[in-house]
Formats: sequence, C-alpha cells, structure tokens
Amino acid sequence: MLTVPLPNTPSRDEMIDALLLKAEVEAFNEAYARALDEQRLMDWAELFTPDGFYTIISRENYDRKLPVGLIYCENRGMIRDRAFALEKTAMFAPRYLRHMIGSLKVAQEPDGTITAGANYAVFQVLFDRPDATIHQVGRYVDRFERTSEGLKLASRTCIYDSLLIDNALCIPV
Amino acid sequence: MLTVPLPNTPSRDEMIDALLLKAEVEAFNEAYARALDEQRLMDWAELFTPDGFYTIISRENYDRKLPVGLIYCENRGMIRDRAFALEKTAMFAPRYLRHMIGSLKVAQEPDGTITAGANYAVFQVLFDRPDATIHQVGRYVDRFERTSEGLKLASRTCIYDSLLIDNALCIPV
Amino acid sequence: MLTVPLPNTPSRDEMIDALLLKAEVEAFNEAYARALDEQRLMDWAELFTPDGFYTIISRENYDRKLPVGLIYCENRGMIRDRAFALEKTAMFAPRYLRHMIGSLKVAQEPDGTITAGANYAVFQVLFDRPDATIHQVGRYVDRFERTSEGLKLASRTCIYDSLLIDNALCIPV
Repeated sequence: MLTVPLPNTPSRDEMIDALLLKAEVEAFNEAYARALDEQRLMDWAELFTPDGFYTIISRENYDRKLPVGLIYCENRGMIRDRAFALEKTAMFAPRYLRHMIGSLKVAQEPDGTITAGANYAVFQVLFDRPDATIHQVGRYVDRFERTSEGLKLASRTCIYDSLLIDNALCIPV
Repeated sequence: MLTVPLPNTPSRDEMIDALLLKAEVEAFNEAYARALDEQRLMDWAELFTPDGFYTIISRENYDRKLPVGLIYCENRGMIRDRAFALEKTAMFAPRYLRHMIGSLKVAQEPDGTITAGANYAVFQVLFDRPDATIHQVGRYVDRFERTSEGLKLASRTCIYDSLLIDNALCIPV
Repeated sequence: MLTVPLPNTPSRDEMIDALLLKAEVEAFNEAYARALDEQRLMDWAELFTPDGFYTIISRENYDRKLPVGLIYCENRGMIRDRAFALEKTAMFAPRYLRHMIGSLKVAQEPDGTITAGANYAVFQVLFDRPDATIHQVGRYVDRFERTSEGLKLASRTCIYDSLLIDNALCIPV
C-alpha cells in the first residue's frame, strides 16, 4: 500500500475537515427545512445575510439564463417582506409543507466562500385535500457566508423541475 | 483569524463527537427503515427498549396535545403484539413500503439522554395497483437510550401531515 | 464507565474511518444522481468499472432470484451502448429526473471490497405534463471498487418496488 499520499490526495485531517463542513451545511439545511415546515417564515428570513439573494426559478429558464422566477428577492429586506406578507395574508397557512433534502455537495473556495448544491423534494398537504402530494422537486444552488451567528445564505437559487407549479402560489421552498 | 475558540464554540474533537453520535442515529434509522421496508415487523419491535413508547399521531392532534393516534403503544410488549397481529392477519403484507428519512437533528442532554428529530416520507406500492404512491409524510420525534446492544428507541412519535391516511390501515412507519 | 473497549467495540479512529468511507460512497451517489438528473448519460456510464454490472429488476423477481430485468448490462461496454442509444434516440430527453437517495449503509469486507445499500426515490417531470410524479422507488444493492480515479461501481442492482414501470421506458435510475 502507498504510504506517501499523492499530491492531490487529501490527508485524513483534510477529509475530516470536509466532513465537518458538510455537516455544518447539513445542519443549516435542517434548520431551513424546519423553519418552513413549521411555518415560521420570519425565522426563515433570518437564515439569509443582509444582502442575501433568494429566487425560485424553473429549470428551463435557469438553463436559458432567463432570470424570470416565481419569487425574486435581492436582499433580506425583500425576503422579510415576502415572509411577512405570506404570514399576514394567509396564503401560506392552508397547507403543510414537508422537505426532503438530499444529494448534498459542498465545496470551499480558496477565498473561504462556501458553495453547495442539493436536491429537494417538497411534499404538501392542503387543508381541503386529505392526502400528501408532491409540491415541488428541484435543486438548490447555494452560496454561504460564515457569520458570528453561524452559516447564513448569501444566495439560494431554487431550480424546480416542474413546468407548472401547483395552484400558482408563490411560497418559499 | 481567531485561534482561541469562543466559550460557546465547540472544539474540533467535540464536533467530531457530535458527528459520530449523529452517524449512530443515522445507522439506527437505516436499520429501522429496512426492517419495515423488508416487512420484518418482529425485528422492528426489537428496536425499542422494554418500556419503549410508539405512537402515530396527526400533526393537528399533536399540536393541540390531543393524544389520539392511529397507533398507540406504551411499551415493547404492545409493540410486539401489534407487529405479531399485522404479520398474522396479512394486513401488512399486500403492500411494499419504502422509507426516505432526512433532515436529521440529534442532541445529547447533560444526563446522557439522546433526543432526535427527522423528516420522513414513506412510499408504498399496493399489490393491486402498479404504481408507487405516497403513503405518509411527517416527522419523527425521538428519544434514544444506549444499551449493551446499541441504541434503542425509548420513544418515537410519528407526526404525520396528512389529514387522512390512505385506506385507514394502521401500519407502522 | 468502561474505559477498556469491549472486543467488538470499534475504536474512535475506526468509527471515524467508517464515517469517511460512508462519506465517500455518499459523494459517489451524489455524482451518480447528478449525472442522471442532468441527463449526462455518457458521464453516468463512466462511473462503472470496465466489467461493471448494472441491472434494474423488480423486487418480486429479485426475491425469487429471477434475473429478468428492465435493463441488464454485463459490462461497461453494454452500459455505454445503452447510454448512447438513449441519448441518440431521444427516449431519455423528454423528461427530467430528480433523485433522492437515503438510508445508506456501507460495509468494508476484510478483502477490501466495499458493499453498500441505499433507498432511492426518483421523481420525474414529463414534458407534456406539468407536475412532478414518482417515477420509481426502490433500493440500490452495490459493490464498489477503489480505482486510481476514486470509487467505481463494480455492480449496482436497482430493485424497484413498483409492479409496473411508468410508460414502459427503460431508463437508468
């Protein structure tokens, strides 16, 4: 067996560091999913940096670099506005969401920027229908910043596969 | 960069310990899911402590602290009875289940108690329908005990989002 | 508390090694899912060893040891042929796939062979239907080999729960 690592082979410590970073992003995604699943939209907004970007865009538009999205928020103020409006106008309330997030990939750039991607499936129960259905499946493309309060989203792009979104409501995923 | 950790910042070793504990719960959930997916209900019952608690309850009732559930077992004897009855009466057999468990969160209290939560989506294939459908989505709220045989469930509460459960069968998830 | 580990109790270093191995398989599955979700079928084929085996088989046939499958490839040449045919004949194109992989279990045999199992749920969006549906749920049963390019699949058996597969197309999952 080789005992001298090849130039590109990470050391055991580097592999553990990568594992710890991935676990941190996983814990972030867990808190993110729980905020939305428990309908705590104002808590959800606080998971972004002050100039955090959030959009939900179709895979078709994303691939064609068309920025038209279901939701388009250029900073946390806009994200808070969206969260507040949804909570007050009861557009969000008459449904339960349930997130499954998988296939997480995390990378750290030399300048410290953390980028990540993950697949998501969001299920929903509408209050006038008894059974759970698929609300949306797609992929998160993320950029994180490390702050004194832990990781925050500098940018999350939710790229959904579906061509049309269930009953046209623009709720965060 | 800071080299002295802040008082609340866990050390690298503590972060690794948390990772190892989470991996242990993940391995438990994998064995749990596999026992149900492979229809080994008696093996499933053995994943609980002797006074292990198991219930399946709607999100609505859980939020209102109403203890009415689809299944309500106060100890492993009752869990074994349920497992035995389902295996013998062929209520469980004419379907395949498939578990997806995600968004796992694990915490260890100062007294050693391990608490955890996770989202689940259980898919099913009924033998008289060719396609897979969603059986139930929801959240596990758990308490674990460490025994000489590894982790066991002291309590698992399955809180399902759906208002009605597919064809009224009370099968474990 | 015991300070001398029992004979069968893994040491902390062994537990970390198991975690690193599991993370490696997880990263493999992430790349695998992404290749299929992004419709890069030729990249998908390269995830197998030269004599890599790939099959999609129903749970019923698998349990009865009947080798009849939707897809049956005995080596990477056959896998490449399949990938090439699907890309050229546009059977694969008019749909998006989205993988969720969970309940991963990884073991390393004394001879170094890595075996693994995982649950999968594959969602699809067909171009003539606006909503996401379940394409297939099931279980991967895998054998990996470590090569100079990292882990490769020596064998992946996809055991699907569904009795019939959506519109009879034989696409990789």
